[in-house]
Amino acid sequence: MSDDAPLPNPATRRSFIRRGAVAAVALPAVVSTLGACGETRAAVREQKEAKPGAPPPPPSPRQKADQMDAMHEKGIKAFPAKTEGQGNQPMEPRIENGVKVYDITAEEIQWEVEVGRKVKAWSYNRQVPGPQIRVREGDRVRVNLTNRLPESTSIHFHGLELPNDQDGVPFITQPPVKPGESYTYEFTVPNAGSHMYHSHHNAAIQVGLGLLGAFVVEPRRPVRAHKADVDYVMVLNDGYHGYTLNGKGFPATEPLVCSMGQTVRIRFMNEGMMIHPMHLHGMHMTVIAKDGWDQPMPWKCDTLNIAPGERWDVLVKATNPGTWAFHCHILPHAESEHGMFGMVTALVVKPATA
Amino acid sequence: MSDDAPLPNPATRRSFIRRGAVAAVALPAVVSTLGACGETRAAVREQKEAKPGAPPPPPSPRQKADQMDAMHEKGIKAFPAKTEGQGNQPMEPRIENGVKVYDITAEEIQWEVEVGRKVKAWSYNRQVPGPQIRVREGDRVRVNLTNRLPESTSIHFHGLELPNDQDGVPFITQPPVKPGESYTYEFTVPNAGSHMYHSHHNAAIQVGLGLLGAFVVEPRRPVRAHKADVDYVMVLNDGYHGYTLNGKGFPATEPLVCSMGQTVRIRFMNEGMMIHPMHLHGMHMTVIAKDGWDQPMPWKCDTLNIAPGERWDVLVKATNPGTWAFHCHILPHAESEHGMFGMVTALVVKPATA
Amino acid sequence: MSDDAPLPNPATRRSFIRRGAVAAVALPAVVSTLGACGETRAAVREQKEAKPGAPPPPPSPRQKADQMDAMHEKGIKAFPAKTEGQGNQPMEPRIENGVKVYDITAEEIQWEVEVGRKVKAWSYNRQVPGPQIRVREGDRVRVNLTNRLPESTSIHFHGLELPNDQDGVPFITQPPVKPGESYTYEFTVPNAGSHMYHSHHNAAIQVGLGLLGAFVVEPRRPVRAHKADVDYVMVLNDGYHGYTLNGKGFPATEPLVCSMGQTVRIRFMNEGMMIHPMHLHGMHMTVIAKDGWDQPMPWKCDTLNIAPGERWDVLVKATNPGTWAFHCHILPHAESEHGMFGMVTALVVKPATA
Repeated sequence: MSDDAPLPNPATRRSFIRRGAVAAVALPAVVSTLGACGETRAAVREQKEAKPGAPPPPPSPRQKADQMDAMHEKGIKAFPAKTEGQGNQPMEPRIENGVKVYDITAEEIQWEVEVGRKVKAWSYNRQVPGPQIRVREGDRVRVNLTNRLPESTSIHFHGLELPNDQDGVPFITQPPVKPGESYTYEFTVPNAGSHMYHSHHNAAIQVGLGLLGAFVVEPRRPVRAHKADVDYVMVLNDGYHGYTLNGKGFPATEPLVCSMGQTVRIRFMNEGMMIHPMHLHGMHMTVIAKDGWDQPMPWKCDTLNIAPGERWDVLVKATNPGTWAFHCHILPHAESEHGMFGMVTALVVKPATA
Repeated sequence: MSDDAPLPNPATRRSFIRRGAVAAVALPAVVSTLGACGETRAAVREQKEAKPGAPPPPPSPRQKADQMDAMHEKGIKAFPAKTEGQGNQPMEPRIENGVKVYDITAEEIQWEVEVGRKVKAWSYNRQVPGPQIRVREGDRVRVNLTNRLPESTSIHFHGLELPNDQDGVPFITQPPVKPGESYTYEFTVPNAGSHMYHSHHNAAIQVGLGLLGAFVVEPRRPVRAHKADVDYVMVLNDGYHGYTLNGKGFPATEPLVCSMGQTVRIRFMNEGMMIHPMHLHGMHMTVIAKDGWDQPMPWKCDTLNIAPGERWDVLVKATNPGTWAFHCHILPHAESEHGMFGMVTALVVKPATA
Repeated sequence: MSDDAPLPNPATRRSFIRRGAVAAVALPAVVSTLGACGETRAAVREQKEAKPGAPPPPPSPRQKADQMDAMHEKGIKAFPAKTEGQGNQPMEPRIENGVKVYDITAEEIQWEVEVGRKVKAWSYNRQVPGPQIRVREGDRVRVNLTNRLPESTSIHFHGLELPNDQDGVPFITQPPVKPGESYTYEFTVPNAGSHMYHSHHNAAIQVGLGLLGAFVVEPRRPVRAHKADVDYVMVLNDGYHGYTLNGKGFPATEPLVCSMGQTVRIRFMNEGMMIHPMHLHGMHMTVIAKDGWDQPMPWKCDTLNIAPGERWDVLVKATNPGTWAFHCHILPHAESEHGMFGMVTALVVKPATA
């Protein structure tokens, strides 16, 4: 049991950076892809012009700053970086006799978290997070789980107030679903809100590896004040795959995009093991629901602390045009000397269309 | 990426499990105590029927899954496991001239956290948490502390707005209570709510070792809407004794039991060093008080984040029959490849009596 | 200082203490500065009277307790300990054509966190936290940043809803400010509340080293119920400098002082990487604002969990005279076997002046 944060040792990181910086200098191709970074190119040129044969002089402070900045710029310019696979994709159910049927297969895949960084993942339908299930209060839903993992598993519908035998906890409410076997959950959706589905068997490992997804329930009677123009789910995670938003680390995270004057609903869901206080630049968030239940009175903030298992729904009124950083404010979850990474994305507020 | 909680290394844990599983196979007595686990028995039989003399074939994925499941099942079937000692037991005061007198002795004991796992504990009256003190607003209370520890100590009544000289902070409000000595606190209980008492001397160590207990103050004028049929205190801890609820780790934790239609009040108290977002399955919790103070408006959730030193009071309306998992949603505080452990219990909603 | 979780290993710490204690015994000058600690002096005398030449007898449990208590007392008696430098000092702006102008220089200094413990810090105007900027909603403000650090930097005004080009995020809203260069921010203050300013470049390191400060915006129309007699900013931190309140560790922290009957406003700001549940003894806090936004209804607590990036404003009605401990309730952030340290201060409520 180690735990929370110890800052990275600055000395070690420094020398790592120095090495990284030297490598960058040796790779003009990389450097030349940078945008307006004239100073960095100047620094590189300066080093190249040193006499052949002589050992390169140690970089000056300004050169070191330029090299660090170049790494930071490179990350930001790459955003949103294209990676293989996209999680949290809305899933269309089959309809069978009025029942919304979702076929969910748990299986191992390779998942590209950032460009070139592939990790072992346990996925639902080859996505991390699994496909987004979005239904309405009162819907009849059937979930057919097929287990192609080497371990038993199960699905718990986190936040749904289901009959006990649909709760997905092996040996308490059902037998485990063995490797190669299938299991069917069926229920009438009892309560609205931003919920989740995930493994409840060997869950510290299985959820950590990716067996999780969003289960959003639209209310039968929507609250007028909660009407939003765009509706995002943001699943926070911090397990085997590093710090991620919807299964990807910056700059491979997805930006949130809207137009001036629009209302954006964000459904934060924490599937990790740590808190993540999400900070939005430029505009505040109005908190309207906790775990799917409306707060008695909405309240405002710009940094919302989200603990494991929690879901918080907020509305953002897009009143401030521009590209706004949006990140976990535990800074080591979001930035290193190499630049921003992990739990960082942006809210892009475009000028209103005429 | 250093950081927060490092997930257990899967490779290491895997091999540990494998060793554990082999050990289980070698112990048919253990395996045979399992309940309906026919598949596990089959797996064991299969291995036993291998030719004598030949090295046993490596377990198949299915056998490994069965072995892991058997461990998980064993833990759950053992719940609630009987251990020596029970903490947080309601304490009857002596009455002296209208004063409620509590004699509290701090002393070292061996404390059985889980079956067979005994740890060194510093206890009040040989309990971890110490005996539950429950009084009424306006009561006159005397606490006689006797220190049988090898260190000085003191008691701070966390949450009570006492006169300064009863606040229990050595060298600020009183001298430390030396080994072998006694000290008396006496006060009129000023404010209602779910409070705590614990050492305030060398407290990171002393509270970590068990010098803590619940101090519940019933209000002089109870709020009608807060009327509950059953009233539980749940002390969360994560120190030297591991992850515990009321001093015990699953499956030695105590279930919360009620009947359909009843209202359960749960008083969460965090005496540890980490947050614990407690997640109840099957029903939501209505949050009514923070640190003993009524919230201006109750609000609902299914996962309540409780930070060190905080107390949160919730009501659960028992509307969903069955046995419901109830656990910290930082999953490594609640489950490993060996099964559930630590901060796990269940809310058992029995059918209403006719 | 590792952190949150793992409790210090008692055995290791014990032996460390033992060594520390012996050292204390060898330093009668230190011991003799203690206040009413007669028992400690007795214990020391006892050891000194042992025969010369003979190895000293191992300390008795009581002697060990006395030695530990002496260390605890020494820390408390030293409070508030005088150290070099004081952070968070109110800064007077220059006024140029109606604009409030703040000249802020980022530079490396040595910062005395506790008596004799100097650390490398990256500071604004040689303070950690940087100078406190306090303006009014609607003010025109100019901040001239000069970078004397060996790295590029920038300032993000955390919580202010500024035009995008004043948001301070290199490569998104501005170029980085290179070593030796200057950069000017200018804006009309858009929203009231307790905000912060800090680096947003290589921020896990730069903010960790001290590039942070409070930016308080008085509302144009103050809420009558929020009127306070004294107004404190308390910046929480836990990075390279250890656990600090306004840049100092106990006993070098500053006490909060008021008179009976007064109302104290405390503006908590977390610039660290961990939660800090701040616990006030003797009185409760009424929470009035989050991140500068009024809560819809005030609510009460005695332990307020503050996550990184969050600001919480509370009012304390000083109704209980005395010196009250006020500390983070993650106990290893506040106390060790050597005594209280880190995130500890006191609220001193003086008798009302006649």
